[in-house]
Amino acid sequence: MALMLYNSMSRMKEIFKPREEGYVGMYVCGPTVYGPPHLGHAKSYITFDVLAKHLRNSGYKVRYVQNITDVGHLTDDGDNGEDKIQRQARIDKVHPWEIVDKWTRQYMNDMEKLRLAHPSFYVRASQHIPEQIEAIQGLIEKGHAYVTENGNVYFDVESFPQYGKLSGRKLDEQKEAVRVEERSDKKNPRDFALWKKAEAGHILKWNSPWGEGYPGWHIECSVMSNKYLGQTFDIHGGGLENKFPHHECEIAQSEALYGVPFCRYWVHNNMVTVDGVKMGKSLGNFKTCEDLLSKHSPEAIRAFILSTHYRSPSNYTEEAISATQSGINRLSQIQNELLELIDKNVGASVADGEAIKLADEVNEKIKDCLDDDLDTPGAIAAIYSFVTNINRFIGSSSISSETAKKVYAVIKLWAGDILGILPENKKASSDIDLGPIMDMVIEFRKEMKAQKKYDKADAIRDKLKSVGIVLEDTKEGVRWKRA
Amino acid sequence: MALMLYNSMSRMKEIFKPREEGYVGMYVCGPTVYGPPHLGHAKSYITFDVLAKHLRNSGYKVRYVQNITDVGHLTDDGDNGEDKIQRQARIDKVHPWEIVDKWTRQYMNDMEKLRLAHPSFYVRASQHIPEQIEAIQGLIEKGHAYVTENGNVYFDVESFPQYGKLSGRKLDEQKEAVRVEERSDKKNPRDFALWKKAEAGHILKWNSPWGEGYPGWHIECSVMSNKYLGQTFDIHGGGLENKFPHHECEIAQSEALYGVPFCRYWVHNNMVTVDGVKMGKSLGNFKTCEDLLSKHSPEAIRAFILSTHYRSPSNYTEEAISATQSGINRLSQIQNELLELIDKNVGASVADGEAIKLADEVNEKIKDCLDDDLDTPGAIAAIYSFVTNINRFIGSSSISSETAKKVYAVIKLWAGDILGILPENKKASSDIDLGPIMDMVIEFRKEMKAQKKYDKADAIRDKLKSVGIVLEDTKEGVRWKRA
Repeated sequence: MALMLYNSMSRMKEIFKPREEGYVGMYVCGPTVYGPPHLGHAKSYITFDVLAKHLRNSGYKVRYVQNITDVGHLTDDGDNGEDKIQRQARIDKVHPWEIVDKWTRQYMNDMEKLRLAHPSFYVRASQHIPEQIEAIQGLIEKGHAYVTENGNVYFDVESFPQYGKLSGRKLDEQKEAVRVEERSDKKNPRDFALWKKAEAGHILKWNSPWGEGYPGWHIECSVMSNKYLGQTFDIHGGGLENKFPHHECEIAQSEALYGVPFCRYWVHNNMVTVDGVKMGKSLGNFKTCEDLLSKHSPEAIRAFILSTHYRSPSNYTEEAISATQSGINRLSQIQNELLELIDKNVGASVADGEAIKLADEVNEKIKDCLDDDLDTPGAIAAIYSFVTNINRFIGSSSISSETAKKVYAVIKLWAGDILGILPENKKASSDIDLGPIMDMVIEFRKEMKAQKKYDKADAIRDKLKSVGIVLEDTKEGVRWKRA
Repeated sequence: MALMLYNSMSRMKEIFKPREEGYVGMYVCGPTVYGPPHLGHAKSYITFDVLAKHLRNSGYKVRYVQNITDVGHLTDDGDNGEDKIQRQARIDKVHPWEIVDKWTRQYMNDMEKLRLAHPSFYVRASQHIPEQIEAIQGLIEKGHAYVTENGNVYFDVESFPQYGKLSGRKLDEQKEAVRVEERSDKKNPRDFALWKKAEAGHILKWNSPWGEGYPGWHIECSVMSNKYLGQTFDIHGGGLENKFPHHECEIAQSEALYGVPFCRYWVHNNMVTVDGVKMGKSLGNFKTCEDLLSKHSPEAIRAFILSTHYRSPSNYTEEAISATQSGINRLSQIQNELLELIDKNVGASVADGEAIKLADEVNEKIKDCLDDDLDTPGAIAAIYSFVTNINRFIGSSSISSETAKKVYAVIKLWAGDILGILPENKKASSDIDLGPIMDMVIEFRKEMKAQKKYDKADAIRDKLKSVGIVLEDTKEGVRWKRA
């Protein structure tokens, strides 16, 4: 089966066929770095993390570019309001770059903790001012943009009749969405800013043919995606909430400038909701990644996100995240058991054939799920059912170490490397090696039993349990493990 | 005592007086991000980290700006050769921004692990192309730069007679230092590039009034330091090896353009040597921070660097770094003892007065050391001698908890917050609480002793020692601690 992706532009699932055989160029709208990343961000970036990893595992060479918006994103979609970063800088009484550095760092750290791979590289809006100015000049020359007396430059939406084709918004709805203040110098309320004149006191500003100012929010993405991925690149990703006006504007800018389609596939992730309402910074109902990571494992957060299809909303509750942990613990346990089995050098077994058949089947099944427009809930269900099935081959009627290796490879690949819901296998997460200490404790307990002090022996077991260590009686003697 | 800084420009220690009372602007030459940070980098950035922290602790509001060179730094000081980042990208077969992202991340992570505070913000060369072009235009207009037929722009060193004032290099020495190829289009071998025409295949390039090209390495620092810190800002820091030509060129560019002194204090750190030879990437004799951090504690690496004055070379040997660990352990031990004492709520003691006197004295003494051109070896010696002196007040003739708090505050401030050689106080670095387990082990040993199985009891002690746990007999019974 080939990868199918739902293309927001055609409004249907399409077979994914990149522009150039074997290579994929993907651009994803990154964060505006003025505050803490929250679960809504996590849903978007985990989605595209899985997509990039699945593409790479399918043999594609992927260039994944993500932007960092460090200038030009206003508090208001109607091109009024203040630059979000500059506003925060004013509140914190620091230079805007301090805001940008702080929150970019937090964003990248949080995403690392959530086990995302970094994109191939990040690109910043402020790093591409000349390119943005050149693109705006090109749009003016082609009659798609106009300069006002105030020194603002707007895209002339009338000049691009296809405007609205991605979001499907009709003219009236477009006007509705971007309320324009009366004092606006736009010819038409639907027009959007390419360049804004810097008001007195504006810090992030540059010289331009139209005076000192700064780029509008939308132009950076057109310029940077085309610069690093070429014209008509493969995948443009982003949150559903950016479909209009942001992505609509990107299309208008790039297609008006270059006269060719902007990109081949538009992939939009749905939002995270809280009691049915979108989680967002402006609504104040958001849960930061940092906060969630202090309460849940990264795997639990990923499993929560990936248990819902990316095109459906994920409804956040603490319980919904916690509920994923038991499945993850099961994964972790089978990982430990398989690794032990691999270590033991068990020879061929009658169960090998069946176990390998199951592993091959689930491998195929999960690939099919992800190929089907990234059906991560299906993939997770397949993994869990596999874990249940394989469990009976571990223990008494054991599979061989060789087979255990093959079984583990499947779990490691999909649950570990691609979905990121398999906890890292850390034998020693403590800086003190517990092994020799536990040997003594176990010996002590044995001694107590030998002396028929069973109360004492039981007390030792209970005390260990209280700190998260479980004792198991095996044929080889007493073993301990972390609960 | 006021802060004295050795000013490389005047070649003497001067009283530090910022341009604006209470505020300090500091610019430090950051890394060219194309390879792993090594101990030579660590010496430079630890030096300025301590300077920034000492200034802040002295009551200054410090804006500390560091650049990230992501374009224009050529493999050859004579303005020939390849862009270092582009060269690495060619070798790794990736886009130059992948090199930049990878090594910027490594740099920041390593510096965090080495307990450096981030600068107020980082600024990138590629983020300031328009500003660099404008500065070059200004220099051409003022007659300090010329455009060649090839589309290169050079600074005309003859036009700036003070060239050489920082390094003290005479004309002949200047020529010697920047060997120029015969095919160079410079008027004068001493001239240096402000803008280079992009050769075919050059990736990092921008449009300019002189055609497609990229900025010379030196212009970014002039432009960014002046943009964010203003003209004649306070402190310019960097490695000694950048004095000529880099810093000399920065001075020429900025002073020719603005007609005022570039900065007030030039602070240069000396290098790290290996067997007397400079440690550097090009020489291949470097130790990466990552490698060193896998063998030594961050505190040991910092103590090694700071035990030599920043203006003297540090000679690297593994033994020299390891040798600092015992002093650090002593610091860590007194920290634990003081924290225990604070927890115990001990009332007033006859020893309080003397202990507080010692603490006040050492506080004054360390401040004086750091005020004396950042005499970190002196400061460390003072801390160690204080620890020895204070040790006798802990134990039998104990000081009060209140006094212990004051003593600890002094150690925490200087050894912890400013010099960064005091290990973090982590009571529980393990995810399993060792307390209840160790209680059982200790009980077991007691049991063995009671049964006169002394060999067994000793074996327990030895086994614990092997994993880094030490048992101590006290009046209250046996206590354990991490070695």
